[in-house]
Amino acid sequence: MSAGMDVLAGLEDRVPRGLAEAVSAMPLVDHHVHGSLTKPLTRAEFEEAINEGSPEPIPDFMTQFDSQLGFAIRRWCAPLLGLPPHAGAGEYWEARSALAPTELNRLFLAPAGVAHWIVDTGLSASSVTTPETMARDSGATVSEILRLELLAEKVAARTASPADFAEDFRAALAAAVPGVVGFKTIAAYRCGFDVDWSTPGGRSLERAVARWTARSSTAASRTAASGTALRLQDPEIISFIVHAAAESRLPLQIHVGYGDRDLDLHRSNPMLLLPLLRQAGIRDTPVMLLHCYPYHRESGYLAQAFSNVHFDVGLGLNHVGSRSADVVGEALELAPFAKQLYSSDAYAVPELHLLGAIHWRRSMAQVLGDWVRRSEWSEADAIRVAGMIGSGNARRIYRL
Amino acid sequence: MSAGMDVLAGLEDRVPRGLAEAVSAMPLVDHHVHGSLTKPLTRAEFEEAINEGSPEPIPDFMTQFDSQLGFAIRRWCAPLLGLPPHAGAGEYWEARSALAPTELNRLFLAPAGVAHWIVDTGLSASSVTTPETMARDSGATVSEILRLELLAEKVAARTASPADFAEDFRAALAAAVPGVVGFKTIAAYRCGFDVDWSTPGGRSLERAVARWTARSSTAASRTAASGTALRLQDPEIISFIVHAAAESRLPLQIHVGYGDRDLDLHRSNPMLLLPLLRQAGIRDTPVMLLHCYPYHRESGYLAQAFSNVHFDVGLGLNHVGSRSADVVGEALELAPFAKQLYSSDAYAVPELHLLGAIHWRRSMAQVLGDWVRRSEWSEADAIRVAGMIGSGNARRIYRL
Amino acid sequence: MSAGMDVLAGLEDRVPRGLAEAVSAMPLVDHHVHGSLTKPLTRAEFEEAINEGSPEPIPDFMTQFDSQLGFAIRRWCAPLLGLPPHAGAGEYWEARSALAPTELNRLFLAPAGVAHWIVDTGLSASSVTTPETMARDSGATVSEILRLELLAEKVAARTASPADFAEDFRAALAAAVPGVVGFKTIAAYRCGFDVDWSTPGGRSLERAVARWTARSSTAASRTAASGTALRLQDPEIISFIVHAAAESRLPLQIHVGYGDRDLDLHRSNPMLLLPLLRQAGIRDTPVMLLHCYPYHRESGYLAQAFSNVHFDVGLGLNHVGSRSADVVGEALELAPFAKQLYSSDAYAVPELHLLGAIHWRRSMAQVLGDWVRRSEWSEADAIRVAGMIGSGNARRIYRL
Repeated sequence: MSAGMDVLAGLEDRVPRGLAEAVSAMPLVDHHVHGSLTKPLTRAEFEEAINEGSPEPIPDFMTQFDSQLGFAIRRWCAPLLGLPPHAGAGEYWEARSALAPTELNRLFLAPAGVAHWIVDTGLSASSVTTPETMARDSGATVSEILRLELLAEKVAARTASPADFAEDFRAALAAAVPGVVGFKTIAAYRCGFDVDWSTPGGRSLERAVARWTARSSTAASRTAASGTALRLQDPEIISFIVHAAAESRLPLQIHVGYGDRDLDLHRSNPMLLLPLLRQAGIRDTPVMLLHCYPYHRESGYLAQAFSNVHFDVGLGLNHVGSRSADVVGEALELAPFAKQLYSSDAYAVPELHLLGAIHWRRSMAQVLGDWVRRSEWSEADAIRVAGMIGSGNARRIYRL
Repeated sequence: MSAGMDVLAGLEDRVPRGLAEAVSAMPLVDHHVHGSLTKPLTRAEFEEAINEGSPEPIPDFMTQFDSQLGFAIRRWCAPLLGLPPHAGAGEYWEARSALAPTELNRLFLAPAGVAHWIVDTGLSASSVTTPETMARDSGATVSEILRLELLAEKVAARTASPADFAEDFRAALAAAVPGVVGFKTIAAYRCGFDVDWSTPGGRSLERAVARWTARSSTAASRTAASGTALRLQDPEIISFIVHAAAESRLPLQIHVGYGDRDLDLHRSNPMLLLPLLRQAGIRDTPVMLLHCYPYHRESGYLAQAFSNVHFDVGLGLNHVGSRSADVVGEALELAPFAKQLYSSDAYAVPELHLLGAIHWRRSMAQVLGDWVRRSEWSEADAIRVAGMIGSGNARRIYRL
Repeated sequence: MSAGMDVLAGLEDRVPRGLAEAVSAMPLVDHHVHGSLTKPLTRAEFEEAINEGSPEPIPDFMTQFDSQLGFAIRRWCAPLLGLPPHAGAGEYWEARSALAPTELNRLFLAPAGVAHWIVDTGLSASSVTTPETMARDSGATVSEILRLELLAEKVAARTASPADFAEDFRAALAAAVPGVVGFKTIAAYRCGFDVDWSTPGGRSLERAVARWTARSSTAASRTAASGTALRLQDPEIISFIVHAAAESRLPLQIHVGYGDRDLDLHRSNPMLLLPLLRQAGIRDTPVMLLHCYPYHRESGYLAQAFSNVHFDVGLGLNHVGSRSADVVGEALELAPFAKQLYSSDAYAVPELHLLGAIHWRRSMAQVLGDWVRRSEWSEADAIRVAGMIGSGNARRIYRL
């Protein structure tokens, strides 16, 4: 963290000093993150951007600043703008508006203390910073994750015939591999997890691709190739691209649980992935369950039961704010410590890149610190486990 | 709270003084509550009445006083009967039995510090206090909620033909609107949430009403019009009455989760309401998810994702007792603070009207107090959020 | 506990002294436990044995010692081997390897402070200690639980014809009753809970048995009677044996939730048992929901709603380690205190027999101690409730 920032303020008598120093200072690997905006926002857009769940405008009767995330922004980010902690929302907004997007990105990214960002570039890439810019703004190194559904949509748009899709997709994957450290699927948003996860292929896959592209061609002719015309939602094709990616043995990130509302939350319960996880073709591929709230205990169970399954509670931490130590505690139940990672899932608003790291550091300090104070854990073990989850496991899995 | 009651006893070194004073004293709006009994109970009946879950008598091998609720009654209500805190169950029962129902109601309702009760009168109204009596016993004001299934059953009993039901129900709703501040559905008890929530009507609805009233007529001839003969359980009709009520734009309360055991708890998971919540006809109606335990995290997610969804953790608090701060903490994760409310769901036993308020005040003081002590929240913000959840949000939504 | 062991170390200023003394010293009934190994393990086998979830070897990149259970072994068991608390994994393994299985069993079982073990002998009985040996090693008394699926498989192997199975199974049950204090079903592993729980019998059952034994005969001829050839998975037959056992009115243990990975965790959610629990034939049989994590709140709800339902959070405690107070807290929400029990579910590794007791004592001391310090519970009540859950309820239910 930046020298001036006391990230464990208010926890002085709860955290043993050695652990506090280690957790404050350790460089992190944020293994799932996005870029931040390169253009200014209105206040209404900003409030919408800090409300993960909803595509609707914030209703008139409230401000999204009155939320855990809003309070955390006023507490931790206000001082970086020269304001006192807990500055009012209006005051915060005024100070923030005075800075250009690039200034904001530099201001908030560096003090996160992230040494390496693993970036999912699949979200509206045109208006957010590239991995290169993130690296420059934060003084960190970067790697890239490829979003499978996006690649499949690009391949489908140029494939000559449905019979070629499988081969074309594999070729596109192979071409992508040297440039990325892993893949990601957003099956949770596109079809849910309660689908047939067996390995598809052959004529049946070809027919599914034909149906998809036929429907999309018709739609495209109506929507003037809006870019969403080829939106992939067919579970058979999604199962195919997941299996195809798993063959590379690169880590496979899977969005699980909490996200915006077009997702059926209960259909993204990771237990519904059991039929996928039990397949031989997946066994040697590191599976990374992302976010997971409120199913992080289920993810912890899977991380214990399957030697290739890992998980994080990113995203959740930013949005539960002062409750993040409780969520981190729940994540530290069944799963071995080698199976957990840190991520922020920050997107668009650079405050999130910083707050993810602050919440994680404070949570680990509180949870592990209490175990040390109860004489259940040694302080050395606590520091070691924080290092594994904060960066070591990610460096091992992604071969950084 | 009444001057003599130290509702935050035992928390002195956990809660900053200003917050403690504010949370102890602030008047509440209990936005979902029932009347209390107007006739005396036997001890066996009392023990059954404090066991929400079960229609069975309490087994011989135990007393229901040995539960979180029983312990809370002995801790907080005993002193109002002139006994020491933690008085024995027998002692408590003896002192309580010496008072008439009206005396008990006055004794326990006033110190709850509730300024306004929003009363669901749909539960066996003959033997419990009316809203007017509650107002007089507590010195508070009152409003009324109308239970949709009960209204539908009354309408069906007098409707000339199934073809008239829809129009007659709408007319009955319109007639009721001036007297109530909202509606409530107990679909959780009658059909569960995993039903077709599309807008029904026309011939299909008519046929459903015909099936229902035909079956009920037969049953009624057997049961001598017991009042339960017309019990509404048909999901299509329930979907119709919910949509019809939503058109009024008055708040729509939905029982979610924990309740007595004829409900399939897992089929009252609020995530199963997604198909209802996504419909355009519901979007501008405030939806109030009641109770929600153990699905309060799911409800918090919905309250973030849908701008018209609100929720509370009433009922649960009374029954989890000393664990209520933990449940309140979980409720304060994803949902914006403008989307949460206080309720007790107290029914029959006036101790519940008081204990709901005590548990809520203690829980908020502990949870928010810890965040203030950790320097994460300002004390002023904590007091403001407690006021929003304790009364402000309810006053806005119900236009009190 | 053994005189030399300070089981509440590190909690001195969190637990009132009287409660601490009582909870440290009280003899427990471990109402669901297995034997420990009678032959030495390799370190790889030991690490696999402390990973409940998985049949796979521990991957090369990690050690299973880096888990809550591994840390608890190093913290609490190392001193019994003459090592300092938190001794390294290698050091621990070396010291442990120097002792014979019998020495290890004696070393770890006695300080658990368990007065009575109720043993499920259904797990690979040949290589683990018998109940008699457990009694001798620990100075405790023992009772036995009979595993229904195992009995059914034995009966099927010798039944002359499918038409005789029902009668033969009932006869075998009746013959077993004098020697056992209850039955156990592992339906969770064999078919899940989302099956038809009505009372089967007659021709339909006969046909199911015929299908099962026919398939098994074929399999047996191929696998040379491996002992698993007659593996019972048919839900109709499992429903039959559960109902048949329930008729005895002996306690019926049901594995719920967390277990190893051939189980579909979400299909062992206890809410799916509602159709079974609602049947008249079950109402007077004590039902014991075992383990339950992460569905312990659901189990608490069922224990409140059904007068014959009880539950524990055994197994979970050993595997969540330093998080066990949090899990115990969640278990103490809805369920009356007469409906909860202690178990370790320890198997194979005698450290588990001890750690289950340590985690339970520490958890109860912390959770109840905090409620006493908050003035919500009296210390006398806290001690009484700990005694009920630690042994009293089990003595009542199993008529020990």
